[in-house]
Amino acid sequence: MKLLNKLNFPEDLKKLNDDDYNILSDEIRGFLIDSVSKTGGHLASNLGVVELTLSLFKVFNFDNDKIVWDVGHQSYVYKILTGRKDKFEKLRQYNGMSGFPKRNESKYDSFDTGHSSTSISAALGIARARDLKKEKYNVISVIGDGALTGGMSIEALNDVGFRKTKMIIILNDNQMSISKNVGGLSRYLNKLRIDPSYNKLKTGIHASLDTSNLGKNIAGKISKVKDSIKQLVVPSMFFENIGVKYIGPIDGHDIASMTEVLLKAKEINEPVIIHVLTQKGRGYTLAEESPSKYHAIAPFDLESGELNVSPKNNYSKAFGKALVNLGAKDDRIVAITAAMPEGTGLKCFSEKYKERFFDVGIAEEHAVTLAAGMASNGLKPVFAVYSTFLQRAFDQILHDVCIQNLPVVFAIDRAGIVGEDGETHQGINDLSYLSMIPNIHIVAPKCLEEVEVLLEWALKKNAPVAIRYPKGGNIINNLSPIKEVEEGKWEIINNGSKVCIIATGKMVQHAMIAKDILYEKGINPMVINATFIKPIDKDLLENIKKEGYNILTIEDNILKGGLGSAIKDYLIGTDYKGKIKSLGYNDEFVSQGSVEILYKAYGLDCDNISKVVIQLYD
Amino acid sequence: MKLLNKLNFPEDLKKLNDDDYNILSDEIRGFLIDSVSKTGGHLASNLGVVELTLSLFKVFNFDNDKIVWDVGHQSYVYKILTGRKDKFEKLRQYNGMSGFPKRNESKYDSFDTGHSSTSISAALGIARARDLKKEKYNVISVIGDGALTGGMSIEALNDVGFRKTKMIIILNDNQMSISKNVGGLSRYLNKLRIDPSYNKLKTGIHASLDTSNLGKNIAGKISKVKDSIKQLVVPSMFFENIGVKYIGPIDGHDIASMTEVLLKAKEINEPVIIHVLTQKGRGYTLAEESPSKYHAIAPFDLESGELNVSPKNNYSKAFGKALVNLGAKDDRIVAITAAMPEGTGLKCFSEKYKERFFDVGIAEEHAVTLAAGMASNGLKPVFAVYSTFLQRAFDQILHDVCIQNLPVVFAIDRAGIVGEDGETHQGINDLSYLSMIPNIHIVAPKCLEEVEVLLEWALKKNAPVAIRYPKGGNIINNLSPIKEVEEGKWEIINNGSKVCIIATGKMVQHAMIAKDILYEKGINPMVINATFIKPIDKDLLENIKKEGYNILTIEDNILKGGLGSAIKDYLIGTDYKGKIKSLGYNDEFVSQGSVEILYKAYGLDCDNISKVVIQLYD
Repeated sequence: MKLLNKLNFPEDLKKLNDDDYNILSDEIRGFLIDSVSKTGGHLASNLGVVELTLSLFKVFNFDNDKIVWDVGHQSYVYKILTGRKDKFEKLRQYNGMSGFPKRNESKYDSFDTGHSSTSISAALGIARARDLKKEKYNVISVIGDGALTGGMSIEALNDVGFRKTKMIIILNDNQMSISKNVGGLSRYLNKLRIDPSYNKLKTGIHASLDTSNLGKNIAGKISKVKDSIKQLVVPSMFFENIGVKYIGPIDGHDIASMTEVLLKAKEINEPVIIHVLTQKGRGYTLAEESPSKYHAIAPFDLESGELNVSPKNNYSKAFGKALVNLGAKDDRIVAITAAMPEGTGLKCFSEKYKERFFDVGIAEEHAVTLAAGMASNGLKPVFAVYSTFLQRAFDQILHDVCIQNLPVVFAIDRAGIVGEDGETHQGINDLSYLSMIPNIHIVAPKCLEEVEVLLEWALKKNAPVAIRYPKGGNIINNLSPIKEVEEGKWEIINNGSKVCIIATGKMVQHAMIAKDILYEKGINPMVINATFIKPIDKDLLENIKKEGYNILTIEDNILKGGLGSAIKDYLIGTDYKGKIKSLGYNDEFVSQGSVEILYKAYGLDCDNISKVVIQLYD
Repeated sequence: MKLLNKLNFPEDLKKLNDDDYNILSDEIRGFLIDSVSKTGGHLASNLGVVELTLSLFKVFNFDNDKIVWDVGHQSYVYKILTGRKDKFEKLRQYNGMSGFPKRNESKYDSFDTGHSSTSISAALGIARARDLKKEKYNVISVIGDGALTGGMSIEALNDVGFRKTKMIIILNDNQMSISKNVGGLSRYLNKLRIDPSYNKLKTGIHASLDTSNLGKNIAGKISKVKDSIKQLVVPSMFFENIGVKYIGPIDGHDIASMTEVLLKAKEINEPVIIHVLTQKGRGYTLAEESPSKYHAIAPFDLESGELNVSPKNNYSKAFGKALVNLGAKDDRIVAITAAMPEGTGLKCFSEKYKERFFDVGIAEEHAVTLAAGMASNGLKPVFAVYSTFLQRAFDQILHDVCIQNLPVVFAIDRAGIVGEDGETHQGINDLSYLSMIPNIHIVAPKCLEEVEVLLEWALKKNAPVAIRYPKGGNIINNLSPIKEVEEGKWEIINNGSKVCIIATGKMVQHAMIAKDILYEKGINPMVINATFIKPIDKDLLENIKKEGYNILTIEDNILKGGLGSAIKDYLIGTDYKGKIKSLGYNDEFVSQGSVEILYKAYGLDCDNISKVVIQLYD
């Protein structure tokens, strides 16, 4: 780390010569692999953009120029070179450095990202502000080929091309989003990859910027059929048709070529898209071979690549297994993912029922309305998706699924706190944005073993149903799963007195641990598993009211519009005289940190639950 | 109406010869103009698709084949010919026929639409269900060029091209969404319009399906520069690159050409997009000249085209005027619309401050993140948008604006019941899906005259602010607008006893009328104008609690997660002993009907408000 040790800020790079840059690339890779092996984090995507990021530093001055990293998990190299190398020890930890760009972390971060496909819109906004204020600097968006399948990227490109606002879009094409990229657009990008001009660009980039000779070049080959003409004209077509100048493809690991292209792009007074080919995981053989595995990874052993903590059974796996079982019995069941077959546990289903599995790319909106179309015509679609990403399809859930009351099942993974990814990724909103929609049913398993029975019920319900379950697995293993689901019915899992805990999902496990803590203090609260967040169990609430319990509701969700709120809304209209308290997240964004630390910070840990129960005991 | 009188169902069309179809086109136009002049409704878009719809009936059998109309307001001709001609008398009325496709209205409607850009996703879902069930029929999506700027259309096309599912997409290109269409994509479609092959297609469609000769055709022209080569290859490029076969452009008012093309498309075993050129308002001169005005129109005079009810001042105009005033004082203020410069009242701003006005096409998601980018770089963006359409940008509001606490102003028009457009368009969700997001502020003017002072406050706040206001204008004109806005403070506009009405926005006017009704019965409730829906006025609530009032909350929004819910949530934690009732919409979708009828049906009319106050009086 001879060079890297001396580098902290962009100006330090100015002293380097061309050879130094290649040495520095290796050092940065070493730093990334070593650092992420200890803290966990996004590895493969950052290994892929080492040379790209260094080229950007060679050409641009980020004290003035502004860059927006799409999704943002590929910003580690940029962070290393903008004064944050030392903060990697606390990468993604509570009060540590974010794994994503954060304006409040560094003046070098121009815009916060996290969800996919926002960078062109944001960068365009920044560029237009620059122009209206008559300022001068470059604005750059770095976006992956996967993120380009998210519709809002194309909405943004349409606008970029319309007004011709000067900006540079770098299309970081690694043929991946998180898994292998899919779709017609991806196939098109593949065509570009094998375009003959690519080899030329590897050694020089003369032709790409000077297109006036293209007519002549084509002349010699004109006797071939239309397809080969397309092949030649294609590179510029998709983008130039909508008004954005296209340059590429460029070898994204060749600093000299990229520097040359970026220097020229900087001089062009209109929007330019530079198509850069990179390899995810580059330089760490294990990650090159399994980029999905090393996309976002827990701490791992450097030599073997094995995770330091062996993965236990978890909800994603339980869901995947359940869907395979149920899919065997009913061939109307189909599964949809938005570019996350592994993360959502659908891999096995996708292999077993290839024709009933649909990966639509990073396109949650399309995924939901596709599901609605399928459901309207007799299928039973299950859309497996992370809670935070389903937010993007709020309108489609309401407008396309629920107004028509169509039997779409939403299998909502990573619901509740997800931890290290922070504000942008916490899955703590779904109970609120779903509860407000008529016709939908919302359920949550209290343990892994309940996933299948709930999924089976959902698939039989013939109406929209959301099943939400958290990251990870069981905390305790002594809970008996319910055998049968009765709509809107809750389950009493501990008979007790004076205080009634109504918890849902994973929080039922917290409640049961709290109950054990309290038992030693001679306190025995009733514990209810709220299997249904919508509809709530009004009969049981009437009983609780009659028996005069004080109530504590617990949910791994924001308080506004969640389970506790629904219970309060119901009880306040009645003659309920007891006290009622709710645990969940108040009206603020929940930062990064380990799940355990965050539960403690926000009072959802077992100790605090037991304390609140004591308060409610009088 | 010689022909039309005898026609009710698709089979009746089989008896017609080619000449009859042209006569029928005229008769249908006459019927549409006459009918919509009486009931109001979407006129221009339907006049544009008369021949297109007739051609579809000639080629397809909608007892089996399925069609999804994007947005759906252009489905009147289809409705006329699928047994619903007689229902046009009650078009868009309470318990009458919907102005959009509705599965529960007719077996000929395959999928409900309303919001833009959903049809390709839905049709693809239907087609995939067909294939998995091994059934045989055609699936068609009809989508406008405006709707194609909505990102989810492209997400869907990407998926269509990937799996090559057999379906027909009809691109109904009238160079309009509701206003003139914008963006790079639109410019591209314009290029197609002037493509030399178009003229050929007007008289015959030979060339378009047989592309094997294209190489030879190009050969003669190869000496020209690249751009002209593009021009020739272009038509098929954008779509064929992502795997969808392109045919067109076709004259959308020439039944013979269209029939020929549709017959061929039907035989192609992969996805096909047919580019059809139509004219909005076709056949009614006034509508041809002002298609925006006749997009969705109230009842009007046939001769003059004038509206039967002269338009009064309304909230959209008040907003537009206020923004022009404020824009004159601060050149950091910019305005954004998603294809609705007229409807949102931004027209005047767009003319006066051309360089500070941005129409992004039907692309609410991009609009919000664009605004976030602008705000991050020193501008003060105002996104003017209808409540129901802002739903589509829920994730962008939360993820791109509110996490970073950026000063974006959301000017939410058509908030509350909008009436005749029905379930898909009621703006009754915004208070709920916005209130749950940290950092945002939500305000509502109680009268037209308050729009400017609230907008001014919003633009100074340096944080996300939503201003919501309803369709139409004032009901009463004797309210004094507040002079100054104090964050989180409500206004007591009538001092009274025993019962406190807390109303927001237009409902303050209802409350004041109810107060007058009650006054005659010797009852005088306190009336509070809840200017702020978020944050709520806790100090005032404490006073109300101390004084022992019963409370009635009123909001033109769903009850779940709205104003009443926030008030209850606050009070239930305290020692409030009074009664509390909330008026708003329960957990169901609100159907079409006039605004007045719907208020009555859901208990938000002044009479019911006064009744509920009496109940709370004890």
